[in-house]
Amino acid sequence: MEPVLLYDTTLRDGAQGEEISFTVEDKISITKRLDDLGVHYIEGGWPGSNPRDIQYFEMVKKFQFKNAVITAFGSTRRPGISPENDPNLEAILQSQTTAVTIFGKTWDLHVEQVISTTLEENLAMISDSVKYLKMKGREVIYDAEHFFDGYKSNPDYALKTLIAANESGADFLVLCDTNGGTIPFEIENIMDEVRQKMASHYGMTTDRLSIKFGIHAHNDCNLAVANTISGVQKGALMVQGTINGYGERCGNADLTSIIPILKVKIGNPCISDENLAKLRKVSRFVAETANQVPLSSRPFVGKSAFAHKGGIHVNAIMKIPMAYEHMIPEVVGNKRRVLVSDLSGKSNIEYKAKELGIELGLNGHDGREIVEKIKKLELEGYQFDVADGSLRILMEKFTDQFKPIFDLESFRINIEKNKDCPCNAQATIKISVDGKQEITAAEGEGPVSALDNALRKALGQFFPDLDEMRLVDFKVRVMDGRDGTAAKVRVFIATRDQEEIWNTIGMSRDIIEASWQALTDSFQYKLAKR
Amino acid sequence: MEPVLLYDTTLRDGAQGEEISFTVEDKISITKRLDDLGVHYIEGGWPGSNPRDIQYFEMVKKFQFKNAVITAFGSTRRPGISPENDPNLEAILQSQTTAVTIFGKTWDLHVEQVISTTLEENLAMISDSVKYLKMKGREVIYDAEHFFDGYKSNPDYALKTLIAANESGADFLVLCDTNGGTIPFEIENIMDEVRQKMASHYGMTTDRLSIKFGIHAHNDCNLAVANTISGVQKGALMVQGTINGYGERCGNADLTSIIPILKVKIGNPCISDENLAKLRKVSRFVAETANQVPLSSRPFVGKSAFAHKGGIHVNAIMKIPMAYEHMIPEVVGNKRRVLVSDLSGKSNIEYKAKELGIELGLNGHDGREIVEKIKKLELEGYQFDVADGSLRILMEKFTDQFKPIFDLESFRINIEKNKDCPCNAQATIKISVDGKQEITAAEGEGPVSALDNALRKALGQFFPDLDEMRLVDFKVRVMDGRDGTAAKVRVFIATRDQEEIWNTIGMSRDIIEASWQALTDSFQYKLAKR
Repeated sequence: MEPVLLYDTTLRDGAQGEEISFTVEDKISITKRLDDLGVHYIEGGWPGSNPRDIQYFEMVKKFQFKNAVITAFGSTRRPGISPENDPNLEAILQSQTTAVTIFGKTWDLHVEQVISTTLEENLAMISDSVKYLKMKGREVIYDAEHFFDGYKSNPDYALKTLIAANESGADFLVLCDTNGGTIPFEIENIMDEVRQKMASHYGMTTDRLSIKFGIHAHNDCNLAVANTISGVQKGALMVQGTINGYGERCGNADLTSIIPILKVKIGNPCISDENLAKLRKVSRFVAETANQVPLSSRPFVGKSAFAHKGGIHVNAIMKIPMAYEHMIPEVVGNKRRVLVSDLSGKSNIEYKAKELGIELGLNGHDGREIVEKIKKLELEGYQFDVADGSLRILMEKFTDQFKPIFDLESFRINIEKNKDCPCNAQATIKISVDGKQEITAAEGEGPVSALDNALRKALGQFFPDLDEMRLVDFKVRVMDGRDGTAAKVRVFIATRDQEEIWNTIGMSRDIIEASWQALTDSFQYKLAKR
Repeated sequence: MEPVLLYDTTLRDGAQGEEISFTVEDKISITKRLDDLGVHYIEGGWPGSNPRDIQYFEMVKKFQFKNAVITAFGSTRRPGISPENDPNLEAILQSQTTAVTIFGKTWDLHVEQVISTTLEENLAMISDSVKYLKMKGREVIYDAEHFFDGYKSNPDYALKTLIAANESGADFLVLCDTNGGTIPFEIENIMDEVRQKMASHYGMTTDRLSIKFGIHAHNDCNLAVANTISGVQKGALMVQGTINGYGERCGNADLTSIIPILKVKIGNPCISDENLAKLRKVSRFVAETANQVPLSSRPFVGKSAFAHKGGIHVNAIMKIPMAYEHMIPEVVGNKRRVLVSDLSGKSNIEYKAKELGIELGLNGHDGREIVEKIKKLELEGYQFDVADGSLRILMEKFTDQFKPIFDLESFRINIEKNKDCPCNAQATIKISVDGKQEITAAEGEGPVSALDNALRKALGQFFPDLDEMRLVDFKVRVMDGRDGTAAKVRVFIATRDQEEIWNTIGMSRDIIEASWQALTDSFQYKLAKR
């Protein structure tokens, strides 16, 4: 079976999603992850539409990718000008990608009433643009916008647009359900008809037709994945979609569903087993980068995708997992969760303690009790699987093994703002180390930064080698915004020195308290290594 | 065309969702809304499994419903006992519903390895239970659990279970894809085969077969809606699903997608036009009752379902809505929205300005210039597509139409922490309204909450009706954590009063400054409505 080509448009169509926005750095880091996942094409952006995407193509050409081809996106030339004079095609070429994707109009309504040109001129726009890009040596992916709506409105004209692209040298003809209103049996019938008519146009049988089709679906009817699978069943060799289905309105076809369906359910070798197991992590990474709460119920990759709640189900899967699981969760990098009497949590924590070199039963403590305490904190929202540093300190505290390197005596932060001037924050901190006290003050970009600076300055009196310690990530998540400004807040800090990176966490309704917990754990962790 | 019967199981299967839980009162109020929507069957609960559901059936029988039949759910009798002695069937009967739904095993693996009985005894369990319930005068809906997995494993046995239910008098045979792992063409092929084999079993042609089939799909492959539609295309007369697709793991088939597809795309008269227009409100109501944030991208009913961001799209829908809308949003009670962001052009801003009642050309200003300013701010990280409230104020400021209701003179926030005691935050604020000054102070859960409380208290002196204004969401995003605690922070606030919800945004390296921007915009927006 020929592998279906995976074409990701998270960075372009995905960024059209209502709450999605990426910086150039975000886009570069997602590109790297998609390449590592084994995606074949990555649509990086639309250089003709905004300066951020031009900057992206400037940066991305400095990287070597092992699997992916980067494509620049844009439209066919404008009516009435030559391709050489079209700024949009020029921007595509300036992106210097080996592959390019252009979309053209299929639907007569759009040609005549939206871009206000003639049906003939639109065909010329398609031909001219594809030819020009081919002449410039590019692989050309032609997206037939509104293909299915166009075909329903005027099948002969819709076919003519495909033929124009094909005969001008387009490498792929991608049939787009741009408005997302088409249902699977329509996709199937229309694709059958298109193959037959194209074959008859070229005077051959459908099985000899060598045109490479692709499918691009939107989720307005909750059918984007189904429509994509229908497309593949009718011969599409390329699927266009986005990670987590991000995209305008109800989103694009979700590659995190399509990839495992193709691989596991249909047996298409579009991805290696090794790469498929990265799927959940890629989904999480893109969600984090887009600052979206990962959807728990997302098929295959969501936190709840293999979670069992009902007693009957839990009982059954303990006997035989396939009784209520349609596949092995680890295949997509996910795992089973049991929501009642979560026994796996206990073994996780015991495993982790061993890994950190902490004995939970030490000093007369009961390991089971500590596991229960940690589980309780996790129920409240702490997430120790991504905060090793804080988990270690917590386990040490619970078992009286914690030896603080410094103690906080007190801190004060003063914030002031006058009329339209920016806020100003100052922190005063008093700490003690081995009975010696130090009081000092610092400013910063806001209260957390002032506190961070003051703590570092005070500790610097005792430990000059703190210089090599750097905060490399700071994240804030409001746990449940419905409580407004009094909502519970979770703060993550990642810190590195020359040897390692460690993560700490704090949680409170007070962002300063939460930040302090994460900060102080980070410094204690570093100093304990001495 | 015969109307497809809508069978809702939000209250039973939906409540298996990881984060979903309903009180008895919740269940009653959802029942009323579903009846009002025109759903034909409402599965109220599983009285044999928990006391809350017994209470529900006690209460629900006091109501008269105009459209819906309530059903009680349970399993076939246990192995080795008579139906009269089965507590589960007894609980179903005690619910006193005219219709009942029981599920039985189809899959030989489940019969032998999960409930540990013989294939013969399972057939007897199905027959006995259906006969017993029919004898008690009930309409019996038979759910064939794991039908498709069972059929793939042992087609002959799977058919025997259906025949057992049918010949015992079951009114509906519902084919369940319990694990959600089946894909549409398998549903279609298996349903074709089942009809053919059943017809041949009864010595007739398929078109004369009078058995009423139903379909019950889960969303583990993101295909629950597609599988349901495939089921209907293969003759299913009943569709089982939940509002918003709530349910265990990845959820059940989403009725808020299925209903409009049946009605609008396939033309099935399963619901009246008048009732279809209630769909979005029912979706919101169930989400609110389940305490779930409504999914913006949910097809048909989500806030983003008809939202347009890209400039080209906005330009086109202003000319002709069907250019980028697959249906009229009002048909399902939804509406079109235009978003403003850096991906958008002049048309979005103009459309938005019109919607907000702002004239961009006023006071000698130029709309294009404002687009450029907004694009620049978005490059810095502002995101106006989710901050209507701030956008309005910004547009007013850019065109000299902004009339501040209050001015900040100054604020001070003092945070203190001593040893291990929790942080304490106090805010002092001085504002002026029409030249009159007010100074006051407040505490809070952290500095932002203290500032929020102080501002509200100060403004309350002038505007007592502020009481009805409540913050309903608060989000913080660190834009690029690599700058550590000095990173740029973006704050979103959602606020509602009795009429509407509005969103505001602030951005700064100082979280207090960013929060202040979002807070002050929210209060200004509210007060400007007076």
